[in-house]
Amino acid sequence: MPGLDDFLAANVSVALVHYPVVDKNGMDIASAVTSLDLHDIARSARTYGVDSFRIITPLVDQQDLIKQIIDHWITGVGSAYNPDRKDALALIKVHFTLAEAVKALTQIIGTPPRTVVTSARMANSNLSHAGLRDLVKISTPLLLIFGTAWGLAQSIIDEADYRLEPIQGNGSYNHLAVRSAVAVILDRLFSGRK
Amino acid sequence: MPGLDDFLAANVSVALVHYPVVDKNGMDIASAVTSLDLHDIARSARTYGVDSFRIITPLVDQQDLIKQIIDHWITGVGSAYNPDRKDALALIKVHFTLAEAVKALTQIIGTPPRTVVTSARMANSNLSHAGLRDLVKISTPLLLIFGTAWGLAQSIIDEADYRLEPIQGNGSYNHLAVRSAVAVILDRLFSGRK
Repeated sequence: MPGLDDFLAANVSVALVHYPVVDKNGMDIASAVTSLDLHDIARSARTYGVDSFRIITPLVDQQDLIKQIIDHWITGVGSAYNPDRKDALALIKVHFTLAEAVKALTQIIGTPPRTVVTSARMANSNLSHAGLRDLVKISTPLLLIFGTAWGLAQSIIDEADYRLEPIQGNGSYNHLAVRSAVAVILDRLFSGRK
Repeated sequence: MPGLDDFLAANVSVALVHYPVVDKNGMDIASAVTSLDLHDIARSARTYGVDSFRIITPLVDQQDLIKQIIDHWITGVGSAYNPDRKDALALIKVHFTLAEAVKALTQIIGTPPRTVVTSARMANSNLSHAGLRDLVKISTPLLLIFGTAWGLAQSIIDEADYRLEPIQGNGSYNHLAVRSAVAVILDRLFSGRK
């Protein structure tokens, strides 16, 4: 039977942005889709019970690649080989732009989700991890936005409702893979700090 | 300046086992090395300040592959392209067996590390995440052991000092990638539950 956290997690979606993101020199680019991002983040999303995993790329060939991967695991050979993977990848939706993802969620929810951007180098964060948990507790529909490559473009950060504080490890080194960052943030949100 | 958590994290190492692990039918196998496991887990290990990341594989061609990847990022073209990656991959050591990794750590520490096995399907766990944190707090040298493929072989689980309780998300689905599981467990250990 679903518990309270299941209900609350259903208000949360995850977005992975491939455009606009920045390269190592801070220039806006469109990054290539990484197959393991789809698998790892879908598995984390499913494990922590979030509603959907929305992949943002305006590149049609990249969208085709995503659809091929999903088809393999949902209706193709992979669906029999590993049904658990099917349950995870079924959470994936593909969008041309972040605005399109927000619009799609708005139509489902009936109200726009609050947008939360994440970055390892967030200059002016306005939301702690405890604050994020408080937003979830009061059933605020949320879209957690993660960037690929060297992170989200400034334009995406500027437009968001909330800028989440970076994950702090030990010391100044802070270079988690985006796949790891999504898992850690969902665990901080929904594990009940066990 | 290093804080208390830095000091404590230095007592902890992570091992990723490629043999013996089980396939989907529960048979013991040697799995292939996945390049992104090296990168993602090294980056998590470095971010949370653990002492070393020990990769276990008896297959010489797989050991060669690991060394090629490390060389590329530590002394090759990659070291100039992304120095942060160098700092992370420098934590990697390669061993033929888990016993060899334990022996190497014993020589460094002067006493055998306590071994902690992890699994999404741990039948008889004898350590909670809070209990693991307590072990770290009293400066117990620890080797956290993770499996690839469908998880660690029973023989590895039976020989360990501690069997960590599985990561629980929301509901019964519990299929995190090993890359995500390492990040979540290190975050639970060292983030101070911020």
